[in-house]
Amino acid sequence: MKERIAQFQKRIRGDAAIIENPTDLLYLTGMHLSRGVLAATKNEAVLYVDGRYFAKASKEAPCDVKLLDTEALARFLREAKVEKLEYDSAQTSCDRLFALQKESEQVELIPKSRILKLERGVKDLEEISALKRAAALTWRGCQHAASLLKEGITEEEIAFEFEYYVRKHGASGLSFEPIVAFGENSAYPHYRAGKAKLQNDQIVLIDVGAIVDSYRGDLTRVHFFGKPHPELQKMLEITQAAQRAAIETIRPGVKLEEVDRAARDVFRNEGVESLFVHGLGHGIGLETHEFPSLKTGNGDGELSLEPGTVFTVEPGLYRPGLGGVRWEDMVCVTDKGVEILTHD
Amino acid sequence: MKERIAQFQKRIRGDAAIIENPTDLLYLTGMHLSRGVLAATKNEAVLYVDGRYFAKASKEAPCDVKLLDTEALARFLREAKVEKLEYDSAQTSCDRLFALQKESEQVELIPKSRILKLERGVKDLEEISALKRAAALTWRGCQHAASLLKEGITEEEIAFEFEYYVRKHGASGLSFEPIVAFGENSAYPHYRAGKAKLQNDQIVLIDVGAIVDSYRGDLTRVHFFGKPHPELQKMLEITQAAQRAAIETIRPGVKLEEVDRAARDVFRNEGVESLFVHGLGHGIGLETHEFPSLKTGNGDGELSLEPGTVFTVEPGLYRPGLGGVRWEDMVCVTDKGVEILTHD
Repeated sequence: MKERIAQFQKRIRGDAAIIENPTDLLYLTGMHLSRGVLAATKNEAVLYVDGRYFAKASKEAPCDVKLLDTEALARFLREAKVEKLEYDSAQTSCDRLFALQKESEQVELIPKSRILKLERGVKDLEEISALKRAAALTWRGCQHAASLLKEGITEEEIAFEFEYYVRKHGASGLSFEPIVAFGENSAYPHYRAGKAKLQNDQIVLIDVGAIVDSYRGDLTRVHFFGKPHPELQKMLEITQAAQRAAIETIRPGVKLEEVDRAARDVFRNEGVESLFVHGLGHGIGLETHEFPSLKTGNGDGELSLEPGTVFTVEPGLYRPGLGGVRWEDMVCVTDKGVEILTHD
Repeated sequence: MKERIAQFQKRIRGDAAIIENPTDLLYLTGMHLSRGVLAATKNEAVLYVDGRYFAKASKEAPCDVKLLDTEALARFLREAKVEKLEYDSAQTSCDRLFALQKESEQVELIPKSRILKLERGVKDLEEISALKRAAALTWRGCQHAASLLKEGITEEEIAFEFEYYVRKHGASGLSFEPIVAFGENSAYPHYRAGKAKLQNDQIVLIDVGAIVDSYRGDLTRVHFFGKPHPELQKMLEITQAAQRAAIETIRPGVKLEEVDRAARDVFRNEGVESLFVHGLGHGIGLETHEFPSLKTGNGDGELSLEPGTVFTVEPGLYRPGLGGVRWEDMVCVTDKGVEILTHD
């Protein structure tokens, strides 16, 4: 954790920066804080917390700890003679910015979107190990849930069986509310799970994730319960081919947009590109969706992959009224290529 | 839902306002949208959603629905000749504000903190009914969890038993990660649940909540497993007296600070006020913590209660190294007084 703070301090552009987002605070301090401020110059770092966390933080935090009161930040800025203060413009509300402007009157505020995104975007060995555990448990839970498919069972029951299984086997929670979609419901990429009962010859889409040691899993599988529908089966084959093509491009130095393009080329050649209505994937770690994003348009396509980048690859095709398919795995960029984390 | 949108339109101060927060969108439209923009003038309301939600929203939303693209808001503002646009400064990030400034170049942006707080702070009959169901299920789940206390069981096991029970009985999720604290762990107000095993003569603090039909429960109970510790028992009696004193003040027209003062007076008279380290309670509804807040200092003490205001009353006393007690119920202001929602 000390190294993470040092790494963050190195990248400060002004003379100081503050971190207030709870997930970023967890990343830097190892502590779950619902509220706190990490204020740092290039050679000093102080974690400010309120009375609820003070005793615990004083023992556990990898930096100085002081009591957070309304004057705390102003005092820090004055004592460290800060003139330019970086803040996270993606994760700071307008109201908080207005308050910051008052707390730091003589100081120039410099917006930086997702201050820690580069640090958090490349996972260290400890993080990769946690992500592997989360991915493996998610995979087992998904297998378990699929093994319970039978006529008449509801989507919600399958979702709950996944949760029960992973919690019993060490998950502290779910990465997101499970998506379990039977039949036509699978055509909605952001469907959750409802009261629908499984019928013969329906498609089943399961998109789930378990949290292990604060790190998140994310996996999507499709099953045909009974006879596969020929068109949906064809769509699934194309989607799996698109995923394979994308994963095959992954190695250090490759740009994310090349990964995206590989999948889209497969869809375009099959004439179904318009049925692929979402991004190809997203970084994953302490949050389910984090940097980098594989959205087209406003994604991070320009990013060159480096070892330790972990993200999902999840192409899908959706025909409203009929059904949809999605095939998702978590991958980690390695020194020479790629490792799939969600495989058996 | 139509009425809620109409109510919101009435309160617009400029000539238009936008709502982007997913919980506010749920409140106004009844739809779970991870992303969307409700743009309204005093006599027009349009919900903009992307391709994922368009089909569903067109069927279900209580207002016009259009496709959300990068030009959508600019078009709306131009066509409605908007000069002053309100936005939610508490729930809009700085980055989003910077983007808004570009999207609405000729328009003056007016910050308003928690645009819908007054509307959402007073619950209608349907909401109160859902909150009662959430409170009742939370109460039963808490009773159930407490009935399983036995030597050697862990905090996490009790937490999970609560979750399993409420999910099996209709909860869609938990209001927050359960707090189950044995012995000294109860001295930390924001402890969660760990591997600690229950020993004889320990205090047990359980703070839990279930979500039913999108509305949230929140309840804290304290149990003595075995022989009560005399000092903790005394602290519990004082805390319960403080809660009773606070609840007795509640009726329409009373200011929230009077409720807070009633509890604090009890603590002060007993010489233990410094052990009460958090606010007396918080509004609750679609979110676990919402308007109004009973924090001292920056809370909403000036608010006059009106029928339909639902909030928690949760005094507590904490002695680090020994243990802590908290006693929490959900209350609803009625026409003449108050109803406790979390009772049997």
